[in-house]
Amino acid sequence: MPSASETLITGETGAQQLMGYVLDVGHPDQRARCRLEVTRDHLNRHGVLHGGISSCLLDSAAGATASLSVDATGRVPFLSVSLNINYVAPARPGPIEATGMITGGGRSLLFVAAELRDRDGTVLATSTGVYKRVPETRL
Amino acid sequence: MPSASETLITGETGAQQLMGYVLDVGHPDQRARCRLEVTRDHLNRHGVLHGGISSCLLDSAAGATASLSVDATGRVPFLSVSLNINYVAPARPGPIEATGMITGGGRSLLFVAAELRDRDGTVLATSTGVYKRVPETRL
Amino acid sequence: MPSASETLITGETGAQQLMGYVLDVGHPDQRARCRLEVTRDHLNRHGVLHGGISSCLLDSAAGATASLSVDATGRVPFLSVSLNINYVAPARPGPIEATGMITGGGRSLLFVAAELRDRDGTVLATSTGVYKRVPETRL
Amino acid sequence: MPSASETLITGETGAQQLMGYVLDVGHPDQRARCRLEVTRDHLNRHGVLHGGISSCLLDSAAGATASLSVDATGRVPFLSVSLNINYVAPARPGPIEATGMITGGGRSLLFVAAELRDRDGTVLATSTGVYKRVPETRL
Repeated sequence: MPSASETLITGETGAQQLMGYVLDVGHPDQRARCRLEVTRDHLNRHGVLHGGISSCLLDSAAGATASLSVDATGRVPFLSVSLNINYVAPARPGPIEATGMITGGGRSLLFVAAELRDRDGTVLATSTGVYKRVPETRL
Repeated sequence: MPSASETLITGETGAQQLMGYVLDVGHPDQRARCRLEVTRDHLNRHGVLHGGISSCLLDSAAGATASLSVDATGRVPFLSVSLNINYVAPARPGPIEATGMITGGGRSLLFVAAELRDRDGTVLATSTGVYKRVPETRL
Repeated sequence: MPSASETLITGETGAQQLMGYVLDVGHPDQRARCRLEVTRDHLNRHGVLHGGISSCLLDSAAGATASLSVDATGRVPFLSVSLNINYVAPARPGPIEATGMITGGGRSLLFVAAELRDRDGTVLATSTGVYKRVPETRL
Repeated sequence: MPSASETLITGETGAQQLMGYVLDVGHPDQRARCRLEVTRDHLNRHGVLHGGISSCLLDSAAGATASLSVDATGRVPFLSVSLNINYVAPARPGPIEATGMITGGGRSLLFVAAELRDRDGTVLATSTGVYKRVPETRL
């Protein structure tokens, strides 16, 4: 069983350090979570969470969920091919969490949905996307 | 005619300061540009631009282009309702620019497309989105 | 309680007669269903269900589900603003059914997801869309 | 140079016969066109073109444009993976035409945009989609 230090991915990349989100690939349901404590650093000109940061969290949770379909590390690389986001409700400062869920696909392409919720469970944004496994010869 | 300090929007919000992009609303074609110098701070685990940051730039350029349909300040607030992104090619460190273009709509909803290109003009990502003018009573 | 003749909408419009689907707005869960018996009239050049017909069913189920949020007739008009479809698996001749589900929204705009499944429950396609209530002054 | 009978595809499939559209793969710009004479058979309950039929035309034009990237027959099979449609303006009876345009991609996946216009050139709907070449072993 992997330890917490193996299943909580923090500060791994430049983008992740910049935004400060945590990627959790250790849930037994094989759905990755991406968490962020929203602060004023993440707000747009309307005083609510910037849509681009919502999309970062949704995309990261979905991509890691795709990885979990291959093995438990959550680190097998998948590329985002296409992503559709619906901005359901504005998010304010506080903790939020995106969760991925595979809805279909085959060997090279996966369809992965994701939901972003606040601590009360209110849906803030939803996404569906197409993810492609990076061929090993390209690594 | 507005001066450069009025048409170049920099560091206006927390999210913009964090990511470091510049929003340019001063083009006579009324299409806003959103520019970023991609550094290692913006890369994902594959060493290329994080898709969430691409979507920030596309969304910001599209939203400001929606604003320019109302007046030349580029600051009339519009909310992102829905955004669809296609990740066409990976982006590497260097300057990139997203440009918005209105494709249709009416009084309250606008359809805005955007393209993200590198300095060679290669298309990195494209988006189409639905933007809603924020009712004045909600400001 | 409405009778079956009120909750099963058949052949109401030209498009519906052409394709032959049935719209069922009588479920207590307020999720409209759109059913079709796929025949060779609905196939594309690959011998599977044409993606455009999948999108008809998803869009019709989602639009009628939006209507059911207003009243039980399922006939209050909503327009499709934007629709995103993921083609998860090919559909072959036989009965299929799309079901809508509201995921968020407010007074004028609703976000509605839909799933298309075959008789075995296999997901064939999923969609998310933005639906707008037609203002009464426009009727 | 192919003759008109080779570049105009009519009634090839059940779905095409049902809806009555014509697929034109003979333009030197390698962008396929999909044309329909909208009649009352194609209208929805609001008296305008059913969104599902718009999506058929957009998807067919985009898929055939993907085929034209391989050879001039326009018949090399591609599957729709994901399709995003924006319904820009209502369409009324009369001739309409969808045109595809490749925006990027590689050997197996292509990004293809499409626009649906009426005879006056008014944009009725736009789409972007991901298309996948059907592996020959699957034919």
